[in-house]
Amino acid sequence: MEIITKANYQTWERFYRANFINSLTGFKSINLIGTKNQDNKSNLGIFSSLVHIGSDPALVGYINRPIQAAPHTLANIKETGFYTINHVCPSFIEAAHQTSAKYDEGINEFDEVGLHEEYLGDCIAPFVKESKIKYALQLREIIPITLNNTFLVIGEIQTIKIEDDILQDDGFLHIEKSNSLASNGTDSYYSTSFLNRYKYAKPGIKPLKL
Amino acid sequence: MEIITKANYQTWERFYRANFINSLTGFKSINLIGTKNQDNKSNLGIFSSLVHIGSDPALVGYINRPIQAAPHTLANIKETGFYTINHVCPSFIEAAHQTSAKYDEGINEFDEVGLHEEYLGDCIAPFVKESKIKYALQLREIIPITLNNTFLVIGEIQTIKIEDDILQDDGFLHIEKSNSLASNGTDSYYSTSFLNRYKYAKPGIKPLKL
Repeated sequence: MEIITKANYQTWERFYRANFINSLTGFKSINLIGTKNQDNKSNLGIFSSLVHIGSDPALVGYINRPIQAAPHTLANIKETGFYTINHVCPSFIEAAHQTSAKYDEGINEFDEVGLHEEYLGDCIAPFVKESKIKYALQLREIIPITLNNTFLVIGEIQTIKIEDDILQDDGFLHIEKSNSLASNGTDSYYSTSFLNRYKYAKPGIKPLKL
Repeated sequence: MEIITKANYQTWERFYRANFINSLTGFKSINLIGTKNQDNKSNLGIFSSLVHIGSDPALVGYINRPIQAAPHTLANIKETGFYTINHVCPSFIEAAHQTSAKYDEGINEFDEVGLHEEYLGDCIAPFVKESKIKYALQLREIIPITLNNTFLVIGEIQTIKIEDDILQDDGFLHIEKSNSLASNGTDSYYSTSFLNRYKYAKPGIKPLKL
């Protein structure tokens, strides 16, 4: 085993440290966030910093980097109040990664990377047609994190579109059957293999498989 | 494809909805958080709501449920200012899941589920000896999320202990080689298979594999 102290990693080169710290937090979901600006231009960006905040109300958060590093998605969400989250699948992994390039404001990443817009219900924000699990969010709160000028952006889930045959009898989604990917760090992608589900744990009882 | 509206899911039974909403956000890392209370009693709990907040300073957040639902870990972190995050591996998946049972305050989950405490450097919080990737955190901020009475708990990474041979030349950690698991929903566990890493994306250039 290797031990690394804060005094060690603080001396590291910026990109080396970023790769390391980003990997430490482990596997993440990998998602495309679709938005529109006030002039009805579409934007698409890749985000792996999603976090489940609650089921009732159904709240999802993501971390937006400082405004100067990642301005367009957050500006559009503020302007319109709506956005979509779309799971990334193997068939468009390269296109999804390419949305992380710093395109100018007003450039439509859907066109640039070869993905297609889809509209559902009364959500003005574009979904990714190629995605097999996707949902619309209405903005509820933007919480500034003053420690490093990032933002926790919280939305409430609205309309959801999922592939057939992944919804189980108890509400659970077998997302690996839709080939949703996991990610690690800023640039690596993984497929997953289901191991087990376990019953709700209670003190003094051995964990039971579902 | 199946379409579900907010009006649909709001009528669902509580546990069915929780399974569904928890699965929508996709794969997550799965971690044990180790703490001590003021009386030096150890506590261990499982958390999948981790989120990378930044690399410089090296900040990691997790969502703590409302105090009445999950009181011990957050109380201990407030009291001592330190905690550990430990990746869950297949060899102790059942023990890790069992820590989610509602044990009384003062019960040491390490003893209850058969995991072992380990201490590193000057971190007073216990690590999980069996874990192959683990790190200490010092509390930086607790941000209340008033929308649903949860908390974003942010710590700065201190001492790190990782298995040999997973650190790459560019700082990236091949965590799948240590068999770190991913999770989905509240109760399902997955192994992962590495697909690809891609270079930093730039406008107008096809994504290149690393």
